[in-house]
Amino acid sequence: MEQRVLDQTLAQVRAYLEASDLAGAIALIEALRPPDQADVFEELRLGQQEILLPRLDIEDAADILEELEDEDAAELAKRLDVNTLAPILDEMASDEAADLLGDLHPEQVSQALAQMADADGVQALLVFPDEAAGGLMTTEFLALRRDMTGAEALAAVRQWAPEEEAAYYLFVVDQDGRLRGVASLLDLIKAPPRARLGEVMDPDVIHILAGADQEECARLMARYDVMSLPVVDENHLLLGVITVDDLVDVLEDEATEDIQRLGGALPLDRRYLDTSVLQVTWKRIGWLLLLFVTGTLTASVMRYFEPLLTTEVTLAFFVPLLIGTGGNAGSQTTATIIRALAVGDVDWRDVLKVFWRESRAGILLGLAMAVVGFIRALTYGTTGPLALAVSSGLLAIVLWANVVGALLPLLAARLKIDPTMISGPLMSTLVDATGLFIYLTIAKAILQI
Amino acid sequence: MEQRVLDQTLAQVRAYLEASDLAGAIALIEALRPPDQADVFEELRLGQQEILLPRLDIEDAADILEELEDEDAAELAKRLDVNTLAPILDEMASDEAADLLGDLHPEQVSQALAQMADADGVQALLVFPDEAAGGLMTTEFLALRRDMTGAEALAAVRQWAPEEEAAYYLFVVDQDGRLRGVASLLDLIKAPPRARLGEVMDPDVIHILAGADQEECARLMARYDVMSLPVVDENHLLLGVITVDDLVDVLEDEATEDIQRLGGALPLDRRYLDTSVLQVTWKRIGWLLLLFVTGTLTASVMRYFEPLLTTEVTLAFFVPLLIGTGGNAGSQTTATIIRALAVGDVDWRDVLKVFWRESRAGILLGLAMAVVGFIRALTYGTTGPLALAVSSGLLAIVLWANVVGALLPLLAARLKIDPTMISGPLMSTLVDATGLFIYLTIAKAILQI
Repeated sequence: MEQRVLDQTLAQVRAYLEASDLAGAIALIEALRPPDQADVFEELRLGQQEILLPRLDIEDAADILEELEDEDAAELAKRLDVNTLAPILDEMASDEAADLLGDLHPEQVSQALAQMADADGVQALLVFPDEAAGGLMTTEFLALRRDMTGAEALAAVRQWAPEEEAAYYLFVVDQDGRLRGVASLLDLIKAPPRARLGEVMDPDVIHILAGADQEECARLMARYDVMSLPVVDENHLLLGVITVDDLVDVLEDEATEDIQRLGGALPLDRRYLDTSVLQVTWKRIGWLLLLFVTGTLTASVMRYFEPLLTTEVTLAFFVPLLIGTGGNAGSQTTATIIRALAVGDVDWRDVLKVFWRESRAGILLGLAMAVVGFIRALTYGTTGPLALAVSSGLLAIVLWANVVGALLPLLAARLKIDPTMISGPLMSTLVDATGLFIYLTIAKAILQI
Repeated sequence: MEQRVLDQTLAQVRAYLEASDLAGAIALIEALRPPDQADVFEELRLGQQEILLPRLDIEDAADILEELEDEDAAELAKRLDVNTLAPILDEMASDEAADLLGDLHPEQVSQALAQMADADGVQALLVFPDEAAGGLMTTEFLALRRDMTGAEALAAVRQWAPEEEAAYYLFVVDQDGRLRGVASLLDLIKAPPRARLGEVMDPDVIHILAGADQEECARLMARYDVMSLPVVDENHLLLGVITVDDLVDVLEDEATEDIQRLGGALPLDRRYLDTSVLQVTWKRIGWLLLLFVTGTLTASVMRYFEPLLTTEVTLAFFVPLLIGTGGNAGSQTTATIIRALAVGDVDWRDVLKVFWRESRAGILLGLAMAVVGFIRALTYGTTGPLALAVSSGLLAIVLWANVVGALLPLLAARLKIDPTMISGPLMSTLVDATGLFIYLTIAKAILQI
């Protein structure tokens, strides 16, 4: 739905609420699709949300709590009476219900669980971190036996009436609950009604351990185009299922985190405008200070070359340009390598290949910059030797930045550090001091000062 | 499948091929899942690929051409005889077949189309760009009539036997082929067998125009958790369907492009290791040169303040540190805002809100850096006024970088320029010259030189 239409609906809902016409507001909200309902809902005051939610159709209430940002949902849920909350939690997907309970006060959690019909399923999920396969899965799945017929399986689906996403793959388990196969709904429809599941199913099921990271789940699902991924424990016991809507959320979250880290800040835990200025500051200040301290090395390098710089002050004039260019070249390379690592196009074993590629690219780019830099220095009015010093410095710095920018993310991956920690700012800062040293050493040799 | 196992399989396939045991190589490849087949296949020499592909099961051959990188698939297809190629194209999803044909020589295309059974469906797709909804959709969908019963619809599905992804949503059209509703396979199974589709279907279908950008398709599918998105023309005629596996690919491609642009390079069109060093260089050199030219402004600013810098050479020693810190602060802000724009958390209308937030964050961060910078300058052995100049410069530069870093991406979005053009390197370069000017102006005023 277009933003404009949503804004109008929001204004109308507010008008109804001002006029104390709850029924009018409810009718408007219930006519929307869940993500739109949540968008309207989150713009209301908490007090208004608290009055509206219990009066909505319970499915809509559950959808809204699922769609709201985690923190917003928790704030609202904290204000709800347990008699209101428990049935809504029962209506929510079990992974979402568990996420929400994880953000509430322990006392409220135990009260809610005591009143929930599906307390067991949700409680089982509370032990897994949100970002692990076990925290992502839903426990609402249909586990069938190999000796059932296709017609019996279809009858079970009909009776169970699950959420859309959960219905398209049916998992087959043995008598101990161990995962043995998968059959799609389409397989069941196409198979003769009397065929046993054991014959219809594919015994070679792509699956994941409950402790695996969500990024691994996403990569597996994306690679093999599976729309639901069964989660098992070490004994191959089927614990739950991750559905494709979770995959999409994970892909978006991971890309957001990567981009924020690449920019040199810690990832925000919530949406930008929902994060306080203090929190935004907090997520940035650590890296900024660390980089500042590392950056003070540049001042020491400059002082080390003080005699050179006071004799040829023009050398100093080119310092920002040279180290800036080094930082840019390094940032280009780092971004490419980090993304190639994230999507699995390169890994540590490619380190020599990458080194050789980036050395050649660095020489080509460095030569181009050296030519342009030589001309620029001459037109700036410097002497020939000085222009030569600037252009040799550029070549060396760009080559150096390319190689460092390629190897650091690979090294991080090798050391099992998240490669996105090697941000653009970290790269530029590291290249600043070292590049400066390279530039001034070359200049000193050429100018023989 | 683990990389190690894949490597072993590849070695075995190569050994069979060396020994001219085609049957052995084929058996190994056919036992793999399609993405693994493609991974093994792309490591073989083109001559080996050309011999193997026509001898594989035709479904496997089609899967491999779908899974290979576009350029690799085209290179291989160009070497195939039209009698071999046409049936494989028929077996491929129509969107993938159209993408492949788009990369071939026009003469080969018309020969292949002449021999294909599904030439019409594929030909219709050739008119759409790869990155539009029309280029992403498949034309293999089942369009049903409102007066069909659920049982008849299920029989049609059974007879049609489509690909998994295409089967879970069935679209209902009127006699002119206009999209009128959607029913999921689950809806059909749950409905009484004699119920008409007109009663079972949801008439409010989320859909998209054929000309829309793939990013818009992805956002719509992700927001509303739909697993297939019908594509229509201006007359609401149903043209095709985008399936969820396409969504995942689009999300990954868009994130890769964003990250490469943020690093200050043009996006690579193919995987990193499949891109030649010359192409990698080419994708980076434009921005690097442009930023270099912009960066030469710093040298002019330095010269403008030459009397100040020769009197107080220590001021110059802090230049790399100060502009580096400005670049870092700007890069942090830019990355956050660009991602917030990409996922729809902010837009141009939030410009004042963002300005006010980043001003406050900039002051907080700037104050912190000013304190640390003041102490660092004193321990470096500078005078009090000089330390004051450095720390005031830091405050001003960080605040300036934060505000510029926040506003530029918003401005780009407003001007309908891709905000990821405002890369980290562009930000640092813009902040370098302006920040330098601010720092030296403040220093001049404080030191009264």
